Amino acid sequence: MDLQIFQETFLSYLKDQRLTKEPKNLYEPIEYILQLGGKRIRPILTLMGASLYDQDFKKALPAAYAIEMFHNFTLVHDDIMDAAPLRRGFETVHKKWNLNTGILSGDAMLILAYQYFENYEPVVFQQLAKLFSKTAIEVCDGQQLDIDFETRNDVTIPEYIYMISLKTSVLIGAALKMGAIVGGATDTEAQKLYDFGLNLGIAFQLQDDYLDTFGDPKTFGKQVGGDIIENKKTYLYLKTLELSSTEDQQKLLALYNTSDVDTDTKIETARLLFEKSKSPEHLKTQLEHYTKIAFEIVEQMKITDRQKEKLRLFGEGLMNRTF
Amino acid sequence: MDLQIFQETFLSYLKDQRLTKEPKNLYEPIEYILQLGGKRIRPILTLMGASLYDQDFKKALPAAYAIEMFHNFTLVHDDIMDAAPLRRGFETVHKKWNLNTGILSGDAMLILAYQYFENYEPVVFQQLAKLFSKTAIEVCDGQQLDIDFETRNDVTIPEYIYMISLKTSVLIGAALKMGAIVGGATDTEAQKLYDFGLNLGIAFQLQDDYLDTFGDPKTFGKQVGGDIIENKKTYLYLKTLELSSTEDQQKLLALYNTSDVDTDTKIETARLLFEKSKSPEHLKTQLEHYTKIAFEIVEQMKITDRQKEKLRLFGEGLMNRTF
Repeated sequence: MDLQIFQETFLSYLKDQRLTKEPKNLYEPIEYILQLGGKRIRPILTLMGASLYDQDFKKALPAAYAIEMFHNFTLVHDDIMDAAPLRRGFETVHKKWNLNTGILSGDAMLILAYQYFENYEPVVFQQLAKLFSKTAIEVCDGQQLDIDFETRNDVTIPEYIYMISLKTSVLIGAALKMGAIVGGATDTEAQKLYDFGLNLGIAFQLQDDYLDTFGDPKTFGKQVGGDIIENKKTYLYLKTLELSSTEDQQKLLALYNTSDVDTDTKIETARLLFEKSKSPEHLKTQLEHYTKIAFEIVEQMKITDRQKEKLRLFGEGLMNRTF
Repeated sequence: MDLQIFQETFLSYLKDQRLTKEPKNLYEPIEYILQLGGKRIRPILTLMGASLYDQDFKKALPAAYAIEMFHNFTLVHDDIMDAAPLRRGFETVHKKWNLNTGILSGDAMLILAYQYFENYEPVVFQQLAKLFSKTAIEVCDGQQLDIDFETRNDVTIPEYIYMISLKTSVLIGAALKMGAIVGGATDTEAQKLYDFGLNLGIAFQLQDDYLDTFGDPKTFGKQVGGDIIENKKTYLYLKTLELSSTEDQQKLLALYNTSDVDTDTKIETARLLFEKSKSPEHLKTQLEHYTKIAFEIVEQMKITDRQKEKLRLFGEGLMNRTF
């Protein structure tokens, strides 16, 4: 299957890039976080995007690497902001080293990402770097909105969707579009691939919200219930507030505004309120809505039916987390 | 005088760039730090670099702005790493807001800097972005070495010069070279201007070391004695260790390894040891050495005698801090 080839090709490229530069206190943390794993979804998308328009998808490896580097930069800095001790079961960079190393290594990763676009000739370089900067700023905007939402009590569902689209989905769209650019797609075609990724990304994040609360601890990868513990205003939380009786609204608000209740009880109470309001079903409807848009865009693209099928299979695999 | 025209032109451009974007919690800190002032030496150098090869130096304004944005990004993140409460007499970003705002606003500033190069056509864009990335990574390397030196007891003077050249001087060189690139200079000529800036930058930093310990509190801008309070291994400290008697070495080492002594006594004792070893005179010799190299490079450049005179005047002004 193509995806496996993309993944293996990327991992082999990643291994070859090992950063043995000095000063080692700056580059060891970068190597560390890059080697921690993850599914490498974003770089795979870049290779897939290129493969739709050019058989030699390996041309897109530097761009794929830049995207993975950027993604890991956001993890390092976000983990500081969230005061997270663990990432993929291992110590976060700022925990394993310290705050300053987390900040500085992250900064260097952002710059290193840009440097990988230097592998392309000027016109492609500029297209990639422009898309990258635009996307990176949007991810920062999304992160700031996420922080702002923590202290706001009037966040609406559309605002929430906007925030997750910035924080998560634009990078999925950009990963695919960068591949299309390297593969020589037209602007229209590259933009369609971006929109496919953007909508699939929103669906993916909604699913992530669901799994964070109702997922299987064995397969989810993160701590199930983490969003509830951190009082995160996720889709489930916001929708439950919208749909519940005044009494249940008060219960949920109280639950998210006290530290008096133990973690297990808190998670269980929130789950019951979410389910009672049928928010999980609404989430599923939204998720299917964005997936449907993504798949409709695929139909409009100027690629072979076989390639369309591949994009759909990838989307379905992602939404079933079979991949 | 040209410098004043460059400065006024830049400040007017800076004002026009006011970032009124949302989310405001991300962009207000960026506006804040950019408006705090400073001499704007780096962007002025970019405009000056361009003016040597093209009358229309204003073409270089976006590049100059990118450089100033990057410089301020390093200030925001460095102030976090140094736990500095004040910058130019005002609260630092992480103090006025908080740690997370400092990290995230800084990240956004680094990306915004890259975006300003998008004002140039692809070939110039790539040249500027490549030089920028190379320089930015070097500045990170320099910052890391600076941190590493804090816990090392065997730092040599050449290592120290290498560290300050990365942390400070490469950006001075790059600021000038970017102007030259925009102005259409040849590669050789642009590189000469870079080398002029690099050497002048090292001299400037050595002078900064001197003024930090022996400067006039009224005009220096930073807290005089700050390096001593923070046990910074500056040129003066390292040279004093090299030149002093075993007894004085022990005194200095002890002074930098205790928190038992009050600040004023510590500064005064260090000053006396520095002076006794004649380190300030050695610093002055080094400073003149790098200034001389810089001025010799000016002689080799393919610009008019009047322009050479301007570069020298700028260098002298900088070293006398008349500007």
